[in-house]
Amino acid sequence: MSKSIFYHAGCSVCVSAEQDIVNLIGSENVEIVNIGEVRGRISEAETAGVQSVPALLTPNGNVLHLNFGASIADVKG
Amino acid sequence: MSKSIFYHAGCSVCVSAEQDIVNLIGSENVEIVNIGEVRGRISEAETAGVQSVPALLTPNGNVLHLNFGASIADVKG
Repeated sequence: MSKSIFYHAGCSVCVSAEQDIVNLIGSENVEIVNIGEVRGRISEAETAGVQSVPALLTPNGNVLHLNFGASIADVKG
Repeated sequence: MSKSIFYHAGCSVCVSAEQDIVNLIGSENVEIVNIGEVRGRISEAETAGVQSVPALLTPNGNVLHLNFGASIADVKG
């Protein structure tokens, strides 16, 4: 895995953090996934260790949870 | 301001996040400040909007709070 993955759920906190991350690391280095819309990827995010969104999964498999937007439980509910 | 500033307080969560951020955006693009040691910069961090560490202040002035390590109040206490 060479790209980071930014998981979000469309919330305002998520959108703001997404813009910051894209500015910082470049849009070509990050895949943006809205798990509020692409619900089939919620389980992938959970398996990676994402507990809340927005969150950035780094290429080496670490999860950086950013400014709290919503818990995964809220996104699923 | 062209560099980001990564504020931390030496905690294990902070060190892990620091490594991720340096890997993602490059050490030349971020100043690392340990406000547990350089206490004169706590007020600067607070003014920038940092509420907990680790946190990344982006070049455009936004604050990304990362995986919660410690509140600013705890660092001051």
